[in-house]
Formats: sequence, C-alpha cells, structure tokens
Amino acid sequence: MLTETHAHVLRLINQSGPLSRTELVSQLGVSKASMSALAADLIEKGMLTEGEIVYGAGRPSVRLELAASSAFFIGISLAASPFIVRITDLHGKVVGAADIPAATAPLEVVEGIVRAVEHALDGTEIERERLAGIGLAIPGLIDAGSGMCIRSTVLGWRNVPIGEMVAQAIGLPTFVENDANAVALGEHLFGSLRGSDACAMISVGDGIGCGLIVNGELHRGARGGAGEIAHATIELNGLPCKCGKRGCLDTLASAKSISNFAREADLPGTLAALDAAANDGNQDAIAILHRAGSALGLAVSQIVQTLDPERIVIALSDGPLDGPYVRVIRQTLEANVMANETRQIDLAMMRLNEEAWAVGAASVAAGRGIFRL
Amino acid sequence: MLTETHAHVLRLINQSGPLSRTELVSQLGVSKASMSALAADLIEKGMLTEGEIVYGAGRPSVRLELAASSAFFIGISLAASPFIVRITDLHGKVVGAADIPAATAPLEVVEGIVRAVEHALDGTEIERERLAGIGLAIPGLIDAGSGMCIRSTVLGWRNVPIGEMVAQAIGLPTFVENDANAVALGEHLFGSLRGSDACAMISVGDGIGCGLIVNGELHRGARGGAGEIAHATIELNGLPCKCGKRGCLDTLASAKSISNFAREADLPGTLAALDAAANDGNQDAIAILHRAGSALGLAVSQIVQTLDPERIVIALSDGPLDGPYVRVIRQTLEANVMANETRQIDLAMMRLNEEAWAVGAASVAAGRGIFRL
Repeated sequence: MLTETHAHVLRLINQSGPLSRTELVSQLGVSKASMSALAADLIEKGMLTEGEIVYGAGRPSVRLELAASSAFFIGISLAASPFIVRITDLHGKVVGAADIPAATAPLEVVEGIVRAVEHALDGTEIERERLAGIGLAIPGLIDAGSGMCIRSTVLGWRNVPIGEMVAQAIGLPTFVENDANAVALGEHLFGSLRGSDACAMISVGDGIGCGLIVNGELHRGARGGAGEIAHATIELNGLPCKCGKRGCLDTLASAKSISNFAREADLPGTLAALDAAANDGNQDAIAILHRAGSALGLAVSQIVQTLDPERIVIALSDGPLDGPYVRVIRQTLEANVMANETRQIDLAMMRLNEEAWAVGAASVAAGRGIFRL
Repeated sequence: MLTETHAHVLRLINQSGPLSRTELVSQLGVSKASMSALAADLIEKGMLTEGEIVYGAGRPSVRLELAASSAFFIGISLAASPFIVRITDLHGKVVGAADIPAATAPLEVVEGIVRAVEHALDGTEIERERLAGIGLAIPGLIDAGSGMCIRSTVLGWRNVPIGEMVAQAIGLPTFVENDANAVALGEHLFGSLRGSDACAMISVGDGIGCGLIVNGELHRGARGGAGEIAHATIELNGLPCKCGKRGCLDTLASAKSISNFAREADLPGTLAALDAAANDGNQDAIAILHRAGSALGLAVSQIVQTLDPERIVIALSDGPLDGPYVRVIRQTLEANVMANETRQIDLAMMRLNEEAWAVGAASVAAGRGIFRL
C-alpha cells in the first residue's frame, strides 16, 4: 500500500513534471537515504520510472517520472445526457471509452454503469489489478465522505448512496464528487490549473458550476455547498429562479436562460449562433450577450474580491472562446475588480465538452485514491 | 525549539480544551510512547500543565492544559486611532496595555511602538524570555511572508518593510497581518470561531474587512487580496467609490458611507442613533439602514454561496447587535441564500472594539510563532 509520503512524492512529480532524487529531497524535507528508499519502493511498485538524465555540478542524476500505465481510473459522468465513461491512465490520458443512455432510477443507472465499464475495458489491455478506482461526477449536492448523493434536481435523487452501490457492483473503491468540482480537480491534476494552489474553475453549460481549489485542495464547504454561484444573487429582486429566490446568476447566464432570452427575440438559442448574430450587428443578440456576460463577469469579480485566486478558468460548453460574449465577461470582470498593483487577473477560457466531466470524474479517483488529495 | 509535532499538540489542546494523553494519541495518530515523550517535553518547557483527572473505563488519566503564562504575545493595532498595544498570554487573555498616538511616518510609528511596548510591559511581571513574538495588524495589503506593507491608503504607505523595522527595534520575531485577517485569526484561535475549520469574519467599522479561515488556515489569496469584499461590486453602475470603481459594498455599508447618508438626511451619523431613530419610525433612518443592511446581507449571501462556511461572524463597531440594521442584514442574507436542507446559516454578531484589533494582532504572533498556523 502507498503511505502518505509515497503519495506526496507522486503528487510533487505530477505537479512539477519529472524530478531527480536531489530535487525531491529538498522539496520533501527528508534525508537522502529516506528518499532513495522511497524511490526504490515506488519503482518496484511500478509507479515511477527513471527517465531523463540531468548533468549538473555534481554527479549526473536521473529524473523520476510517473509511469503512465501503473494505474488506471474509471471516470463516470452523470452530468449530461448520455452518461459517459472514460478510462484514464496516471498521466490523465484517456485510454478507454463508452457511453450509457441517461437514466434516473438509481438501480438502472448502476446497471448501465456496470455494462459500460465492461465495454470500455474490453477495448483496452488493462490488467484488472491496475484499476485503482472509480470516480463519479454528479450534478447536485453530494457528501464526498460517504459517497452519498444528498440531492440532485437533474436526476431527481435525494439521499441515494450511489457510491456504495457502484462500489459493490464493480468491486473497486468508488469516489463521488459534484460535477463542477470533478472538472476543477481534473484541471488541477492534469490540465490548465496544474500547480496552482488557489484557483477557481467555472463551468457554464445548461447550469453554472464552480469548483474551488484552496491551499492545493478542493474546497467543498462545510456542507458540500461551496461553489454554488449559480444561485448567488446578482440582481436584487431580479428574475424569479427555479430555486425559489430571485435574481440568481442562473436566471441570467446559464445556457438555458440564454436560450430562453433568444427564443423570446426570435433568435437561435445557442451561444455560437448568438455570437455570430452579434458580430453581424443584431442588437437583440448583443443585448442578450451583454446581459448574460455582465452577470457572469460580475459573479467572477466577486469571487476575485473574496478569494483572490491565482488563476480562473471559465469552461464554456458552446460558442467561440473569443467572441462578443467572452469579451463582455472579460470587460465586466476587469471593471469590477479593484485596481491593485499586485493583482493581474489570470482568466483563461476553455471548451467544456462532455468528455471533460468524465475525465474529471476519473481524476477524482486518481486524486483521492493515489495522490491523496 | 518547538517541532511541528509539538505545535500540533498545542493546537489540538487550544482548539478542544484540555485533553488526556490517550485522547491526544487518537487525534495525532502517534504511538503512546511518542505521546508520552511529547507531553514530557512540553511539560518540561512549561507550556503544558497537568490538570483535571478523568475517571473512565481504564486507569484514571490526567488532562493536559496549556500553561497560560508560558508564552506572551505583543499585539499592535494600527487599524484605528489611537494605535493600541495589548499583551496577551497563551490563553489569549489581555495582561498588559498601552496606547500610541496615531502617526503615519514609518520611523515615527516604530518609535511610538517601542515606547508603548516598554510601557505596556512595565505594568506586568513578564520575563523577557517568555515573550514569544509581536503581531502587527495593519489596514491595507500586506505580504505576510516578508512582513512588508505593500499598500495602505489609511497610513499612506507603499512597500514599507514595517515587520523588519519593528523586529530590529524590539528584537523579537515580528509577524504582520492585514487587520481584518488578524481579527479573524484572533476569533479562530481564542474566540467565537474557535474550532471552526471554514468560517468568515466580517468587520464593519470605518471600512469593511473580511478574514477567511479555510481548511483551518487563514486564506490570504494568491496576492494577499482575499477578503476584499469592501470593493466587491454590489450595484452594477452604482455610486462612485474612492477605489475608482462604482457600486462597491463600501459605498453602501461602511460606517463612513452610512454617516454620509445620515448627514444628507439631517440625521446623526452613528449606527446607534440611526437604529434608535428607525425604532421611533423615522422613515429616512429606516431607508438608510435598509440600503446599507441589504448591501451587506447581499455580500454575505454571496460569500455563503461561494464558500459555504460553517460559521459567519459580523463584528460591528457601533450600534445594537439586534436592532433594525442587524435585522435587515439577517433577512437579506436569508432571502438570498439558496434553500437547502443541509444548510443552516450560523450567523453571529459581535462588538468590534478597538481592543479586538490588538488582541487579533497578538493572536497572529501566537498563531505563527507557537501554533504554526
């Protein structure tokens, strides 16, 4: 079994790329002898391999790398229809895939998962004992400790012990995470937020989610409710929201709300089409994108003022990453963050495709099963 | 010197109150033998004493307590005029005090501090070697690592190495912290936020500050800018703010803004007087308190939706803690947080007096010098 110190070595190498034993000694604060033993252990377990040779002042040293095929993770997204299964290796690379028709009855969902996991594994040559765990990305409020889905409006679930059900059906350790948190953890471990200790990942699809990494760890909040910015009030006494409140960010900037505004103005409802119409000078399209983009930019500015993250990534499921909509987001953000000589906002945009949820889910298994995040 | 494990033992006892060796073994995850050695060390250093005897299933065991007089901390607040010095013991109790006429020239500030610290110590019998460190609470942006004040509008400072200046003048380790963070840390170590791993402490005086504890640690943000909710935009295109933006929380809810609104309506400018006038039915006073209270309640609701803290404390420098103003804050908060079966907002109000800043500053020295927070 891996000890906490083994996990720490793996975490450092994942974060920084290949490191020599000498570099690890200084980052871990252990003796050279302990480090040699740790490295020997991890090489014997097949998790590290010796790679590039570094020539420096003293003896040449060898960099240790994560062995991509030493552990595999099954990621399952229930975030969008169809449900999606992806198998990733220890570098976060996708090596197997399958889809599952979306369902809501928990037993049916579990049966679909079992079949799809078998199917995804069939196409690979992964040995069963290299499967380190399963991650589930769920749209809703979850209890990460017990693997319980406390509430999911999308799935119509309340207190469904989905983690335990999947663990029993497949016989692998199963970790459950909110979908937005899973995407954030995936980017933190293997993507654009790698190495960043304080960052926010905002995902904009049918709904709006936000995963926060604080002090190098996922911040779930006292009751799993952190990152629920979709239901932060952006307009006091604004539009009614399905959550019962008024003026929530969700009523202004989710893909669903934008598509509703577009329909009222007889425009096509996707961000891609609205961005194109706005570029052609359509005033209704411009107004819709301004309203949605400034709501989202304002919400992000409040995250910046509250948390001062090192980096922010907004993942859009639709539309160009540099069109009118994104320009409104950027301008509103910049106009509503306090000018500060030490603060430069690092905001990146990325595409949120269906695979991102499943890869995020697999990263949850990697993060909790191997890296002990 | 204290090791990290010594500090961990002290932290656990500070957080939970007196603990037996058996209780510490299970919380620390060390062997009984190691725990005995650790306890013996800390008793020999005078930091722990044996207290209450617990009779349980096995042999009676003795609870270990922090020895209040084993370490003392000098807290200095530059947050309000006059500057204030308080000396606290390891229980956070004030044992010495002095004031310093406010100044802005850094050298003059340091001279004032040196004199006031001598004066505060004169009234006590503290042995010099029991002084563990100095904490400075500064209104502005600081770099906690170097002890530099990067910018303070109130003091007119920019890149003043105040921590190093005070450390050299007095010859004790000196830790610098933003004033709102210092108050939050003080409450976290010794007050109403003790034992809470995720909490927010909002201080409302001339300005508005916010200290965040995330995962048991102060969250300062990537560039020291976390908790700057005073300049979060609450009203898009709202009132102009001195920071250059519009619609900042500060323009609506700081004591200074409230007092300006009151002057325009020919009312007295304190929260106490406005609360009294509102209770008497004065419509202008009611309107002013509604505007300010709903802005603050909205800002707090956004913190709840983003971070899901376990507990929130609002510290008011003025006015009743259960009057019309506080009622508006509470009602706006409740109306703008998503209903959630697992979420109950724990919002407490407290008085923010001048001493709280200095006690917070002393807690910074305790937190960083002894508890390694």
